[in-house]
Amino acid sequence: MRYQEFTIEGRNAVLEAYRAGRPVDKLFLLHGCQDGPILTIQREAKKKNTPVRYVTKERLDQLSETGKHQGVLAYVAAYEYAEVEDMLKDAQEKGEPPFLFLLDNIEDPHNLGAIIRTANQAGAHGVIIPKNRACGLTAAVAKTSAGALNYTPVARVANLAQTIEKLKKEGIWFVCADMDGTRMYDLNLSGPIGLVIGSEGDGVGRLIKEKCDLVASVPMKGQIDSLNASVAAGVLAYEIVRQRLGV
Amino acid sequence: MRYQEFTIEGRNAVLEAYRAGRPVDKLFLLHGCQDGPILTIQREAKKKNTPVRYVTKERLDQLSETGKHQGVLAYVAAYEYAEVEDMLKDAQEKGEPPFLFLLDNIEDPHNLGAIIRTANQAGAHGVIIPKNRACGLTAAVAKTSAGALNYTPVARVANLAQTIEKLKKEGIWFVCADMDGTRMYDLNLSGPIGLVIGSEGDGVGRLIKEKCDLVASVPMKGQIDSLNASVAAGVLAYEIVRQRLGV
Repeated sequence: MRYQEFTIEGRNAVLEAYRAGRPVDKLFLLHGCQDGPILTIQREAKKKNTPVRYVTKERLDQLSETGKHQGVLAYVAAYEYAEVEDMLKDAQEKGEPPFLFLLDNIEDPHNLGAIIRTANQAGAHGVIIPKNRACGLTAAVAKTSAGALNYTPVARVANLAQTIEKLKKEGIWFVCADMDGTRMYDLNLSGPIGLVIGSEGDGVGRLIKEKCDLVASVPMKGQIDSLNASVAAGVLAYEIVRQRLGV
Repeated sequence: MRYQEFTIEGRNAVLEAYRAGRPVDKLFLLHGCQDGPILTIQREAKKKNTPVRYVTKERLDQLSETGKHQGVLAYVAAYEYAEVEDMLKDAQEKGEPPFLFLLDNIEDPHNLGAIIRTANQAGAHGVIIPKNRACGLTAAVAKTSAGALNYTPVARVANLAQTIEKLKKEGIWFVCADMDGTRMYDLNLSGPIGLVIGSEGDGVGRLIKEKCDLVASVPMKGQIDSLNASVAAGVLAYEIVRQRLGV
């Protein structure tokens, strides 16, 4: 198993986690607490770009498993986040054009898990998620991914737009979904590709959309706005699969 | 709005709901309670095929909104379930070959909601669910469907296999998904079709699978078993859409 989730509690334990370089998904700090160790933890959190929540003592007590949180509690993934470079290397070793998923702020863990599962089955080389505002690899994600998290690498990046820029230089094209795009069947999606999936509510952000080479639309015959994010990801991913198979 | 959810509590209220012909999604009865009114309610529940749960007083107290459940509590959908015949009529009026979704025991409300949403966007004429063991149209389903429940009719049938038999006589072909099926691209899915989606854990049941004319497989390149049920439904539905568009 590549993934396990831990709750780490107490000042020393959380500081040690940072010092050992373990990826901290989320940090909870007692609101108003400003002593030395807490300030040190805040500095580490800032350095590592950890999302921090300031909460009441009641909330911390609720989250705590040991009851000894000392005002500090962290969600730590034992899952090792991958590097984008390793995904490209994997594609190269398999002799396949790179196929990456990029998730622009998917917040729902069920959607994230289902998308990682789809990435695995569609033969993608990895999933890239942004560090902030998005859902991390929580226990719910691991469960919904139905084991895919153990096989499909997930990388976290500080800035999705910069990552896209960098990968473009490697010859990867980026496609995102939007209603006003070109019908997905009419686009050539068979080359090295990054599939960008937007959040449930807002779709793909403006800045990210501008970075994309292609905007694809899924035919929508209904009266409502859109498909569920993980379903849309599945439909687009399998259009890529179909084109790669030459069907 | 086609849909709203109610909790109905107390002996008279629940009996009245049955007498008014309102669809009861689920019935909770106090374990061990066997007096006259309860027996009458049990008879109605059996007649209407309502799933019944026998629970403790503590559980009923928890579910109760009024605190006056008298040992009886029912989930009632104000949503009007549709008839399969109306779906066929709708297809005929639109001059389209019928396109139906049949869900073989989807238990997760998020999956059910996402599938109804997909059915709406893929231009299906309706969704058919079995009365027993499956998830009904709960508030969670309505929410995940993102409004699709107000446009795409859902019918509940007592026996899915019999419904398939009946619809076959109307010229509809049935396709279900399974790993051992024919690659979906190699099947002709452009005619009148019923897409059968199995449950998360077990896939499509043996009896239902035997009734299907076609077994389709989605290409799976990963190390895990399957796709999420709503993602698989989306991928298959959009293969049907693609073939119908003649792409």
